[in-house]
Amino acid sequence: METLSTNKAHGGVQGVYRHDSAMTGTPMTFSVFVPEHEAGAKLPVLWYLSGLTCTHANVTEKGEYRAACAEHGVIFIAPDTSPRGDEVPDDAAYDFGKGAGFYVDAAQDPWATHFRMRSYIEDELPALILREFACADMARQGITGHSMGGHGALTIALRNHDRFKSVSAFAPIVSPMDCPWGEKALNGYLGENREDWRAYDACAMIADGLRVTELLVDQGDADSFLTEQLKPELLREACDAAGIDLTLRMQPGYDHSYYFISTFLPEHVAWHAARLKG
Amino acid sequence: METLSTNKAHGGVQGVYRHDSAMTGTPMTFSVFVPEHEAGAKLPVLWYLSGLTCTHANVTEKGEYRAACAEHGVIFIAPDTSPRGDEVPDDAAYDFGKGAGFYVDAAQDPWATHFRMRSYIEDELPALILREFACADMARQGITGHSMGGHGALTIALRNHDRFKSVSAFAPIVSPMDCPWGEKALNGYLGENREDWRAYDACAMIADGLRVTELLVDQGDADSFLTEQLKPELLREACDAAGIDLTLRMQPGYDHSYYFISTFLPEHVAWHAARLKG
Repeated sequence: METLSTNKAHGGVQGVYRHDSAMTGTPMTFSVFVPEHEAGAKLPVLWYLSGLTCTHANVTEKGEYRAACAEHGVIFIAPDTSPRGDEVPDDAAYDFGKGAGFYVDAAQDPWATHFRMRSYIEDELPALILREFACADMARQGITGHSMGGHGALTIALRNHDRFKSVSAFAPIVSPMDCPWGEKALNGYLGENREDWRAYDACAMIADGLRVTELLVDQGDADSFLTEQLKPELLREACDAAGIDLTLRMQPGYDHSYYFISTFLPEHVAWHAARLKG
Repeated sequence: METLSTNKAHGGVQGVYRHDSAMTGTPMTFSVFVPEHEAGAKLPVLWYLSGLTCTHANVTEKGEYRAACAEHGVIFIAPDTSPRGDEVPDDAAYDFGKGAGFYVDAAQDPWATHFRMRSYIEDELPALILREFACADMARQGITGHSMGGHGALTIALRNHDRFKSVSAFAPIVSPMDCPWGEKALNGYLGENREDWRAYDACAMIADGLRVTELLVDQGDADSFLTEQLKPELLREACDAAGIDLTLRMQPGYDHSYYFISTFLPEHVAWHAARLKG
């Protein structure tokens, strides 16, 4: 692992790192904020998965999470959203290919070689964090994310219920099988058989019996993607049918931007901290 | 005045606006955060002047000031650092010309036509704010800034002591006459006569009898520009000799970046609010 930068911030260290990923076959960049802590202390970890077009940098620069992470003693990890590099296939659209990995392991060419963001986030990067960050307590992990990254957080938490003690999301894609962004991505990465898509659709996973205990979701009611892409009511229905305790907060006047995320991310950090440290 | 964008954030509205400036002869862009407030309320105003290479966008995206401004009921205004556009002369270096207006009114060609950032910030933009933002209480203004913008905040506050009830700075250039950035800029904009530079040098202005009551300055001790460009000890000496109450906080481990600024900007907002509302 190579350190690209470290900056002191809010008493801790905001770092940006790169490593050669075996899963994606490319270098991958991610950021980690480690709050000030006593020598030998172990801190809970909060993963943040970003949305379409983003890298680690968007939330790192605009997320306003560091003060809350410093206050609550939480490590904050922000991965990239896809493999990068000249050898990685891409699509001209913003919502497929680079910057749009959708947290799946692609099953068909030309995507299957590099687009393995599910295994990268679920397996490879946590193993690297365990090796490289002695203060990270991998027995206490939470996960959140925005939009496509909210979809990632929900599906990865459902698939790994024992690992993640807390899960929340900002304006998540709750059912990629039922929105244009998701249908394009799952069709492209997985192929035409919609049955194969269910393993990457939070609402379908809940219907198929996967569970989390509790969910916190914030959604702006002025979000331009609300009705066509995000559809939080589908998550409401799935959670109600499954008995999952969903707190869905429709936030009046908020849009899809980091102005929305940065307003509520400190509250999410505190919410995760209470569950990770309780 | 044209509205380029508005986003709800931390209960208020983060806006970005553009207007045709008579002073610079160009369109000028700036951002304003207005916290949630009762109809008819008048809120104090905090100006933030940015550093070299910056536009309004850097602090707007990375400054982490909105939560504090919402808590304390303070309007936050972030102007650009120079005129922009194809007709504006420029220099290939990052520290002169566009992005480097140094808050002076240039006195020699080719700069004198457009580079009038002193008059723009002191006169034209406040008049626009008064006209366009009915909630802005221009009887209660504070000013802060970073690096070149810290120089701007100090010199503009010294020149307009009656207008600004509070002034602070982050890693300011305290004596442009005595550092490479400043000597290049003042020589370029004002000409070779160093006596003309004194009106734009905070330490010289204090020595020449201009005053503010109190100053708060944060400076990272890991700032790579500390010893060659910033020299806070010169401000210490000038303030001690003049009896100005300077709180100079050397912040261990912090650099010159927005990771430093965003750590302490909320404290500065609270500090200004106490003086503007007291």
